[in-house]
Amino acid sequence: MIIPKESRLSPEQLREVTGIVEEFGCRIQEIVGAHRNIYAILGDERHELMFNRLIGLSYVARVDHIESSYRLLDKSSELANQRLVLGGVPIGEEPLFIAGPCTVNPQNPQLTLETADAVKSAGAQLLRGGVWKPRTMPYSYQGDHNALEILIEAREKTGLPLVVEVMDEEQLKIALEAEVDVLQIGTRNALNYSLLKAVGRLSAPTRSWILLKRGRHMADPDEFLSAAEYLAAEGNPRILLCPRGTMPKLDGYRNHPDESITPLLKERTWAPVVCDPSHSTGHASYVPAASLAAIAYGADGLGIEANVEPRKGIGDDPKQALDPAALEKTIRQCRALWNLIHEPTQD
Amino acid sequence: MIIPKESRLSPEQLREVTGIVEEFGCRIQEIVGAHRNIYAILGDERHELMFNRLIGLSYVARVDHIESSYRLLDKSSELANQRLVLGGVPIGEEPLFIAGPCTVNPQNPQLTLETADAVKSAGAQLLRGGVWKPRTMPYSYQGDHNALEILIEAREKTGLPLVVEVMDEEQLKIALEAEVDVLQIGTRNALNYSLLKAVGRLSAPTRSWILLKRGRHMADPDEFLSAAEYLAAEGNPRILLCPRGTMPKLDGYRNHPDESITPLLKERTWAPVVCDPSHSTGHASYVPAASLAAIAYGADGLGIEANVEPRKGIGDDPKQALDPAALEKTIRQCRALWNLIHEPTQD
Amino acid sequence: MIIPKESRLSPEQLREVTGIVEEFGCRIQEIVGAHRNIYAILGDERHELMFNRLIGLSYVARVDHIESSYRLLDKSSELANQRLVLGGVPIGEEPLFIAGPCTVNPQNPQLTLETADAVKSAGAQLLRGGVWKPRTMPYSYQGDHNALEILIEAREKTGLPLVVEVMDEEQLKIALEAEVDVLQIGTRNALNYSLLKAVGRLSAPTRSWILLKRGRHMADPDEFLSAAEYLAAEGNPRILLCPRGTMPKLDGYRNHPDESITPLLKERTWAPVVCDPSHSTGHASYVPAASLAAIAYGADGLGIEANVEPRKGIGDDPKQALDPAALEKTIRQCRALWNLIHEPTQD
Amino acid sequence: MIIPKESRLSPEQLREVTGIVEEFGCRIQEIVGAHRNIYAILGDERHELMFNRLIGLSYVARVDHIESSYRLLDKSSELANQRLVLGGVPIGEEPLFIAGPCTVNPQNPQLTLETADAVKSAGAQLLRGGVWKPRTMPYSYQGDHNALEILIEAREKTGLPLVVEVMDEEQLKIALEAEVDVLQIGTRNALNYSLLKAVGRLSAPTRSWILLKRGRHMADPDEFLSAAEYLAAEGNPRILLCPRGTMPKLDGYRNHPDESITPLLKERTWAPVVCDPSHSTGHASYVPAASLAAIAYGADGLGIEANVEPRKGIGDDPKQALDPAALEKTIRQCRALWNLIHEPTQD
Repeated sequence: MIIPKESRLSPEQLREVTGIVEEFGCRIQEIVGAHRNIYAILGDERHELMFNRLIGLSYVARVDHIESSYRLLDKSSELANQRLVLGGVPIGEEPLFIAGPCTVNPQNPQLTLETADAVKSAGAQLLRGGVWKPRTMPYSYQGDHNALEILIEAREKTGLPLVVEVMDEEQLKIALEAEVDVLQIGTRNALNYSLLKAVGRLSAPTRSWILLKRGRHMADPDEFLSAAEYLAAEGNPRILLCPRGTMPKLDGYRNHPDESITPLLKERTWAPVVCDPSHSTGHASYVPAASLAAIAYGADGLGIEANVEPRKGIGDDPKQALDPAALEKTIRQCRALWNLIHEPTQD
Repeated sequence: MIIPKESRLSPEQLREVTGIVEEFGCRIQEIVGAHRNIYAILGDERHELMFNRLIGLSYVARVDHIESSYRLLDKSSELANQRLVLGGVPIGEEPLFIAGPCTVNPQNPQLTLETADAVKSAGAQLLRGGVWKPRTMPYSYQGDHNALEILIEAREKTGLPLVVEVMDEEQLKIALEAEVDVLQIGTRNALNYSLLKAVGRLSAPTRSWILLKRGRHMADPDEFLSAAEYLAAEGNPRILLCPRGTMPKLDGYRNHPDESITPLLKERTWAPVVCDPSHSTGHASYVPAASLAAIAYGADGLGIEANVEPRKGIGDDPKQALDPAALEKTIRQCRALWNLIHEPTQD
Repeated sequence: MIIPKESRLSPEQLREVTGIVEEFGCRIQEIVGAHRNIYAILGDERHELMFNRLIGLSYVARVDHIESSYRLLDKSSELANQRLVLGGVPIGEEPLFIAGPCTVNPQNPQLTLETADAVKSAGAQLLRGGVWKPRTMPYSYQGDHNALEILIEAREKTGLPLVVEVMDEEQLKIALEAEVDVLQIGTRNALNYSLLKAVGRLSAPTRSWILLKRGRHMADPDEFLSAAEYLAAEGNPRILLCPRGTMPKLDGYRNHPDESITPLLKERTWAPVVCDPSHSTGHASYVPAASLAAIAYGADGLGIEANVEPRKGIGDDPKQALDPAALEKTIRQCRALWNLIHEPTQD
Repeated sequence: MIIPKESRLSPEQLREVTGIVEEFGCRIQEIVGAHRNIYAILGDERHELMFNRLIGLSYVARVDHIESSYRLLDKSSELANQRLVLGGVPIGEEPLFIAGPCTVNPQNPQLTLETADAVKSAGAQLLRGGVWKPRTMPYSYQGDHNALEILIEAREKTGLPLVVEVMDEEQLKIALEAEVDVLQIGTRNALNYSLLKAVGRLSAPTRSWILLKRGRHMADPDEFLSAAEYLAAEGNPRILLCPRGTMPKLDGYRNHPDESITPLLKERTWAPVVCDPSHSTGHASYVPAASLAAIAYGADGLGIEANVEPRKGIGDDPKQALDPAALEKTIRQCRALWNLIHEPTQD
């Protein structure tokens, strides 16, 4: 849809516009309005270059997309018909709970092993844990490959599938070697297309899922889905979308909680949405409320930082991990809210 | 707390800083750090002019407030001990529901009267309705004094107290004359201090409450509470704080939903928080989820646009009002969630 | 322009949509696309209620405006042909400089009188000064009617026209009585439509101009112009648009500098743009750079806080007012940049 | 600086706080205020984990950093004494201009070679060109290694050093092999710490510089500098900081122009700031104004997209590249403004 700066295009301008769209196999239809004519682009309008050339014309005020740019992630894609099961949970039929420490302390395997037991008892179906960590400061602890061994042991003992963040191809290969169940791509890499392509391509022939966090620049639903499209286009459609708070932060929280984007995502895509109340708010005391709010907005699941002894954690745990009692209560209340929302609609 | 640009103040700079704070009855205490000294301000630091003068010094990097600037609204104020009851609802003990049309159509009293009955049946305890309307365009319908008569008739018939927005002193006087139960100050006037003072002063000797919407510039908790402080300082502490969505909007909604500010407000103030899911999201289909999310975050109540026939409304009703069935279901689910959260804490 | 949620409207949906737009004198034209049909609205589409009803339909994904909602402010309006002269400055031919103290101290007339002389010497053509002040805290100094007398005396002595902020009808009447040359509407009242209407209506028969600050919620160009349209619709088209920084603030400034909105405004309206580098940045040391940036972006003028002795000011002066030397240098550099940009375009 | 939720810490709380900071070699000093005591942390407070543990305490309202977290980038670092020369330009003594096409078309080497000549004639001292491209959609053109050959030929012919974006380690190695003069890290990778470390480490022993774009999530000065610290910590302090527009975008631009962050950066770091007016605004017509604004705010240089025939470009060129005449005029005006600002300060 082309909106001209003046009330209509001159014949010469119309010829130029028509010439451009025809190069991309499209046509122009003029629509005569009361004060202004507009010009619809008929045909497949998903050519970024065509748009760039139209926007570049001095007499064009605006060019609007009508079509979505994500084909595989779109609700109309055939992928929408998959039945998705992760960690034994049929997604959409009951809520999915991922829990575990922010950062696995390689010096203290016991803490992680006990936490794994505790989150399972509390009702979580997957275990998360940081092996490698993106840190604002280069001088902070950056992670350790050995932490992965501890998680693998925890998986063996509890049967819980693992969620582990990878930040580069080397880490990705180690994680795939270890058959990590869910590969997490963090918010700082949410638009790292080289990583997205590598993760999609290398995980495609495996059974691994991918949890893609939302870019914290307030990525809109379309941009978020276009990033996920990279994963599917490389062959892996086992994708979880994860809102986790955006910038600018709400004064008092670590980020600006963004569970409210969930309904907008679910209108456009079949991909499950799993929210992260721990990073959204950044403080354990707010996590239960943010968890319930995410379920209220229709999230398919939650990823929650938890630790048997938050104060002993070496990552964000001391400030934002729930202890087992709080985790258990949060999961229990979230299940109750889920059931309330999914009540048979007799009204 | 004064943070200097260099690692410490020179003796001369320290003398100047000390001179300034002493004018306002404060003292300076130097704190010797590893790399940088900082300078605490001892005494009552709530003097805006003192801060302006300190910030203006070329060698000062930052001056931080420690004290809050709202005395009456602060949780430590004696007002925190009030027991608040509005529309028969003991606030904090059960949720408060305000519902009604966006805009009362003076040509169609029946629509409003039927809506009043319907929202009462659905479980609302107060009736809202727009008499005068802030509209982006000067050529849109701006409201009509006669609409107030219809609301008064609705109050008589249903017994529901009224919530009506006022935008200037003339409207305020008409509303007070009519004994409007809750005077609403809208988001566009959230920092209109002349109006805040007039509403606080003129409503003080009456029984009217004030519902103050959050400024949509993403007002932080302190600024929001400082605006409310104007009302209390003029004598009316019967205040409801209303988050209603901020800018920049989330692509797909009318605003950026902001119920997540509720816990931050409730940590600082005793004033009840009533969220507005209708304006936050701007579309009826999202209102039930946003309502539940607000309750999840600890809101004391909700203001929801509702209409027996949304399509016949003349304001935002056609896009964002719930019909009675949706309102009834939303209120019912919100009550259930409220009970879930407020379960006796045996754990 | 109506974009349906599905690939096209059903015949029944199309009938409903057509029925709605016909009530407002418009027609629908269907545009057949490759994957999706869209539906243009032909006729005058500036009916807010028509949009609300269309957006409210469950099968409609989006409704886009094509027409602008500001008729008088639009560049295509006949008002675009006015030649505008203020304070002897033909606007657009040379830059306009407004300068003066944040707040006039009624206890110290000399400070304001000397400042008036100084800003005139520095090259400013208008004098600004705060008589009544919007303050975040109710306990801060709120202004004093007597300060206006001092400004009037300064005007008599220097011949500089006055810019004074008014926040309510009472202040407006006092200002008009005093023949204040430019009535300022501040950012907190930027969408206070009752005040906008009163200022437009009461100033229409006078010679006063109106300086309208941009709402600090990041008001987009259209919303800003729609607010200004209120003024023109009431009869006063002598309007200056004033970007002054938005929220969320840039960490280190008082606000987020927003002079970059200037070209977007000037593409749509004939109304002059006068930027406020003092509030944008909030610190005197940044004002010269922000002033030049505004001129770079095409501003017609600047409003700068200045004071012969900033430290003696009682408002924001101690932190953000320029002293006369800095003001003179800033004005001189801005004039040089103006001439550089407006060089005869021989290339 | 620890601010408690209550007016002071209890003896037991104080013991707990003291115990935590002592683990990290710090001490606590209590500061007795009028209404509230605060607690200064004495010693090196740059331990993220210490902060996490303090924030996690239920009775702590806020913990403020005083020290900066970037040691090498800080203005007080010894690196501040380097004299920086790039492309023959002594940085800070005259402005640096980088220009060239968005995307090098591997099918049309002539276009890039002619553009290289043209940008040199227009006054640019470095040539930029995209070899590999981050694209929102996976189906858009993603770049081609062969394009690098064309740039190398252009460098040979013009003598202009090259600026090329790299997005992963494979591209980095190819670029270093080709002795690319400036390695660009794009906004989407601005917090991709694996890439930052690889670029810093592998470029350290070479002569290559690094141009680091600002994260478009509105990264604050400290976060931006902490990301740059990764580069320096790995051994390469030849860093250019590049503001390039942030989200949420200003309606009408591609991003929200952010040249105004320049003074805040320059107060904290010695690293040069080179702004990107092309991506900030996203349209050629706004680039000259945004270029001047960046110089006004104190930028050391500019990166501008330019093309001899913008419409023939295959990247963003058709919408945002300047043609040679516009580039020449922009550079000329920027130089004039630079001279104006850097006039000998006799006043």
